[in-house]
Amino acid sequence: MNSYPPYIVIEEQGLRDGLQSEKRFVPTDKKLEIIGVVADAGIKRIQVTSFVNPKLIPQMADAEDVCRGLDWSRDALYSALVLNAKGLERAADAGLRHVAASISASDTHSRKNANASLPEARKRIAEMIKNGKKRGLVIRGELQCVFGCRFEGRIDPNVVFDMIKEQLDLGIDEVALADSTGMANPISIQDISTKVIELSGDKHVFLHLHDTEGKGLANALAAMQIGIAHFDTAFGGTGGCPFIKGASGNISTEDLAFMSEQMGIETGVDVDKIAAISRSLEAYFNKQFSGKIHRVIDREDIQVVR
Amino acid sequence: MNSYPPYIVIEEQGLRDGLQSEKRFVPTDKKLEIIGVVADAGIKRIQVTSFVNPKLIPQMADAEDVCRGLDWSRDALYSALVLNAKGLERAADAGLRHVAASISASDTHSRKNANASLPEARKRIAEMIKNGKKRGLVIRGELQCVFGCRFEGRIDPNVVFDMIKEQLDLGIDEVALADSTGMANPISIQDISTKVIELSGDKHVFLHLHDTEGKGLANALAAMQIGIAHFDTAFGGTGGCPFIKGASGNISTEDLAFMSEQMGIETGVDVDKIAAISRSLEAYFNKQFSGKIHRVIDREDIQVVR
Repeated sequence: MNSYPPYIVIEEQGLRDGLQSEKRFVPTDKKLEIIGVVADAGIKRIQVTSFVNPKLIPQMADAEDVCRGLDWSRDALYSALVLNAKGLERAADAGLRHVAASISASDTHSRKNANASLPEARKRIAEMIKNGKKRGLVIRGELQCVFGCRFEGRIDPNVVFDMIKEQLDLGIDEVALADSTGMANPISIQDISTKVIELSGDKHVFLHLHDTEGKGLANALAAMQIGIAHFDTAFGGTGGCPFIKGASGNISTEDLAFMSEQMGIETGVDVDKIAAISRSLEAYFNKQFSGKIHRVIDREDIQVVR
Repeated sequence: MNSYPPYIVIEEQGLRDGLQSEKRFVPTDKKLEIIGVVADAGIKRIQVTSFVNPKLIPQMADAEDVCRGLDWSRDALYSALVLNAKGLERAADAGLRHVAASISASDTHSRKNANASLPEARKRIAEMIKNGKKRGLVIRGELQCVFGCRFEGRIDPNVVFDMIKEQLDLGIDEVALADSTGMANPISIQDISTKVIELSGDKHVFLHLHDTEGKGLANALAAMQIGIAHFDTAFGGTGGCPFIKGASGNISTEDLAFMSEQMGIETGVDVDKIAAISRSLEAYFNKQFSGKIHRVIDREDIQVVR
């Protein structure tokens, strides 16, 4: 039988990774209202937006406004995704204290998505880390496409380890491995994460998982079995893959929390409150998200086991 | 790190559990064509239909015709689901050599779904096993709602163990535990299956998993970690739950096979061929199934890792 961490920490990324590819704009007030519900639901870490090019990602064009509206009296840690020094400056200027500085582990993905070769991307994150430290930010160093890339296929784990080491040497406070494309499997999750945990010493290692190939919760389970206790998720399993019509997005916040609680792993998350956000956004976008439990719970006609 | 079986055996149940709740009838010829593709794809066990009341399940009204059209020269084992002695007689008369005789472990579910209390259902399966043996059939004894029921919630594992023991004593050849409602979690899967494996001696124990709550592949992973190597699946993740609009169905054949192959666990399944069935049926029913990998593979524009 397996052993599991007594609790896991969930970072809600629905506001960023979940919404970023949705065409219909969610007004800033509605985003702030959702952030409030997420905090009410007991989630202690919320990625509230990203500071990226608003022409490319119009849904995130209100990043500064979102930050201006944050209620700092809440018991929650707010962060944002940044991809370059300019984004980092914007995040710091907007008053955030935590940022996720992110680059890709795939050269082709980096060139196509961020217009930077891998060596250039590595310089870029080094600059972000240095500038972020100068401004007193807590920095989560994040690597995308760790478990595979839709352009390159397999990614050499040694490149991943080398890039993580570099970020750790530069002083990141936390590590995040992103399976941006949902290409990980339970064995690659355990193999790569085990090594990264070793490299990271006492720094938390987050996994950012997608369900594009249906393995999202299986991968989360495999990760918990080697002691990973930090996960990025998005309400309803929102988000998607630009290449694959109808593809699944992030692993669902409430699906992971529900499974974990059933297994006796504490999350502190009020699953019903998160599920209500998902159902409300399904109505707003007039579509069905790929998460599951938000359709099942909180009903009088059928039972769930908690 | 975990250990896994070197290979798994998949029983394709898309023709039965996948199609049974679809309103648009699939003509018998099309069903037979799909059965041929499933066999071509290397799947050795195919549940081709069920012998049930055609007024209640019109999609299965052609059970005899399907059996008449089977190509027995194929390297595949054909079976059907039966719920009572009459169904078993029909299956045997139709020429099948294997049947899955199934009752529920939930009294309420059994009363509502099969019009039989639990003691009556137990008598019913005893009769099916006795009659089936007389007719020389290979009998898979199947228990529904083992891991939870939408009416009753939790099901007492001791009732499950007791019912399995009874079926084994009556001479079933294989055991199947069905998570009919997708309510299992990785720990309940391991706890209950471990005990059932002990009870079953050298008889194969199948798991029939649904993805209603998003835990389908995580549960399959947990099962493989304790040595379970027999799974029921349905192409595309077809099937559904009558209570929950838009709910997921069975775990997807190609999703389970794809993940397993990535992990080095042999399945013998040609994932691309099964995915093609799923895409073709999505077009036929004009809907999106809840499986994932059939939307991702077999494309020129993006890579997968096999």
